[in-house]
Amino acid sequence: MLSEEDVVLRIMKYLSKQGFGERLGPGDDARDIVPRSHKLIVSIDGYSIESAKLPWRDLSDVGWCSVTSAVSDIVSKGGFPHGVLVSIGIPRSWNLSDIDELYRGISEACSFYSCRLLGGDTNSSTEAWISVAALGFTSNAYPPSRSGALDGDSLIVIGTYGPQGVVAIDGFKISNELKWVVEATKRPRAIIDVATVISRWSRAIHASMDVSDGLSYTLYTISVSSGKCIELSDLPLYVEELKEYCSSNTECIIERVLNGGEEYGVAIAVDSRYSTKISREMEAMNIPFRVIGIVRNCNKPRVTYKGRPIKVRRWDQFYGWKDTEDTY
Amino acid sequence: MLSEEDVVLRIMKYLSKQGFGERLGPGDDARDIVPRSHKLIVSIDGYSIESAKLPWRDLSDVGWCSVTSAVSDIVSKGGFPHGVLVSIGIPRSWNLSDIDELYRGISEACSFYSCRLLGGDTNSSTEAWISVAALGFTSNAYPPSRSGALDGDSLIVIGTYGPQGVVAIDGFKISNELKWVVEATKRPRAIIDVATVISRWSRAIHASMDVSDGLSYTLYTISVSSGKCIELSDLPLYVEELKEYCSSNTECIIERVLNGGEEYGVAIAVDSRYSTKISREMEAMNIPFRVIGIVRNCNKPRVTYKGRPIKVRRWDQFYGWKDTEDTY
Repeated sequence: MLSEEDVVLRIMKYLSKQGFGERLGPGDDARDIVPRSHKLIVSIDGYSIESAKLPWRDLSDVGWCSVTSAVSDIVSKGGFPHGVLVSIGIPRSWNLSDIDELYRGISEACSFYSCRLLGGDTNSSTEAWISVAALGFTSNAYPPSRSGALDGDSLIVIGTYGPQGVVAIDGFKISNELKWVVEATKRPRAIIDVATVISRWSRAIHASMDVSDGLSYTLYTISVSSGKCIELSDLPLYVEELKEYCSSNTECIIERVLNGGEEYGVAIAVDSRYSTKISREMEAMNIPFRVIGIVRNCNKPRVTYKGRPIKVRRWDQFYGWKDTEDTY
Repeated sequence: MLSEEDVVLRIMKYLSKQGFGERLGPGDDARDIVPRSHKLIVSIDGYSIESAKLPWRDLSDVGWCSVTSAVSDIVSKGGFPHGVLVSIGIPRSWNLSDIDELYRGISEACSFYSCRLLGGDTNSSTEAWISVAALGFTSNAYPPSRSGALDGDSLIVIGTYGPQGVVAIDGFKISNELKWVVEATKRPRAIIDVATVISRWSRAIHASMDVSDGLSYTLYTISVSSGKCIELSDLPLYVEELKEYCSSNTECIIERVLNGGEEYGVAIAVDSRYSTKISREMEAMNIPFRVIGIVRNCNKPRVTYKGRPIKVRRWDQFYGWKDTEDTY
C-alpha cells in the first residue's frame, strides 16, 4: 500500500524548480512568485476523476484536461498562465504508476501551455478527485468580465466545435467508434494566443467567457449577465466531419455545435468598430474563430439563432445535462 | 436534489466583491487581483471532509480548518494572506443548509484572517472533499524555506501545544470528555502576526515551517532538509491542563506536545545574534513562543531532546499515524 511519503516523493520530480528571484522550491509549505505584471488572474477548478474520464481518456488525459480547464479560465480573461497548484485525493488502491500517469498528463499540459507545476497536496479519498488552482498575469487593467456585452457588439466565437457535442448528445458508444470525435476530445486544447488578443484589445472586448460547459450555456450566460440579447446569424467553426455525420441536417449540426462542453474556446463580445481589426489579428495568429452574431438591447435576455430562441443546455455536476432556458 | 446552479448561487453570496482596481467579480471565470507587494506566496491544501471531521467538529469547523491550514502555509513563509479559492466535491445527499454550514466556517475564517473568499468550483463526489488554494503577499524577497537552518541557529517554536497530541495519542473517546481538548481543537487558529515577524526578520530567520502534521515531524523535516541536527533543551509552550492530565509525567507530556498536528504554529531557526531581538518583538505582539533548542552541524541529521533522539511521528493521509524516523 502507498504511503503519503511515497506519493509526495514521486510527485516532487514533476514540480517546477525555483525560478530566478525565487527562494522556495518544490515540497516547501508554499511557493514564492515574482509578479510578472501589475495584475494577477487566479482561478480554481476541480473534478471527480471518474466524471472527467471519457472511456478513451486515460489518467494522463484527465491530468491534461484538468490543467487545460484551469488555464482556459485564465486565458478567457486575457491572462497568461504562469503556474498551477494541484491538490489530489486518491484511493488507497492506486499505485505509483497511476500517480505517474496522472502527473505525466499534468506535466505535458504544463509544458504545452508554458506554465509551471508549482506544488500541490495529497489526500486519500474513496473517490479520486483533482483540484487545480491556476495563477496567471496580464498587463491589462480591465480584463473582460462575463457581463459587459453592449448593444451593437459583434459576437465572436473562438475555437472549433462539434465533437464534444456528439459525445454529449449521442453518447460514449457511438463516439468511441468515431476517430475524429475521440481524437478531438481526448486532450482538448486551450488556445494560449487568445490571451494576447484579449489583453491587447481589452477595452474593445466588452465581455468574454470560456466554453467549458457547452457553447449554448456560455452564450446564454453572457446574454443574461449582461442583460442583452445575443442574435446569432451564423454558427461557429465546426469540424468538417460533422456535416457528413449529420448528413448535412442543419438541426443535427446546430445541436452538436451548441451543446458540447470542454471545448475550451472563448466567446467574446467586441465593440463592432474594432471587430475587423481584431479578426485580422486573430487570422494572422492562426486562431480559429468566426464572427457569428450581434448583441442587442432587449427586454428579456436570450440567445436566438436566425430569429429562433436556442435551447440552452448545461452540464450540471449533479444532474448531468440540464435544460436551463427560462430557469436561469 | 440539489442542482449545481443551486449550490453555486448559494455559494455566491459568501464571495468577496470586487475590490478597488478590480474588474472581475464573484462567479466569473477567474478573479483579477492587484499585487500588494513584489512577491506572491501561493499554496494549496486539500482534505477529505470525513478525515478532517473530529467528532466535535461540525461542517463549519471543517470549513474554518481548511482555510486555517492554507493560511498557515502562507504565514510560515512571512506572507500576509490575501485571498483563498475553494473547490469542493459534495455528495448528492447534501442540502443547502450543509453548504451554508461549510461556507459559514469558511467565511468566519476569512474574516478572522482578513483574507478574501475569491471564488471556487463545485463538483459532485461520493466522498465529500474540499481543496483550498491561498494567495498572499510579502514585501520580503527571501521568504525562509524549510531547509536553511545553520549551525548555531536558535530553534524557536511558536504556538501552544498539547491538546492535539491528546487527540492523536489517546483518541476521540477520551478527548471528547476533555473540555480543554475539544475547545482547542475545534477551530485551531493560525497566528497572522507571525507573518510580520518572519517578513521583517527574513534574513535572520534561516528556516521556517508550519506545524500541521505534528511538531516532531516539522522539526525532523527542518533538520533533514537542512542537513543539520536540532538539539532541544526545552519543550515548547503547552497548555496548563496537560500537566494535570499527565500527572506531571514528563514522558507523557513530551509525547503529546511533539505529536499533535493541526496546531498551525511555526518552527523557525533563527540566527542566534538576533534571537533576543526577535523574541522581544514577539513578546510585544503577544505571540506565544519559546526558544527550545539549537541547530548544530552533525553527520546524521536528527532531533534530540536533552540528548536523546525523539520519536518522529507523522500524520500520513494513507496510513494514519506513522513513525518516520530512519525511514525518511
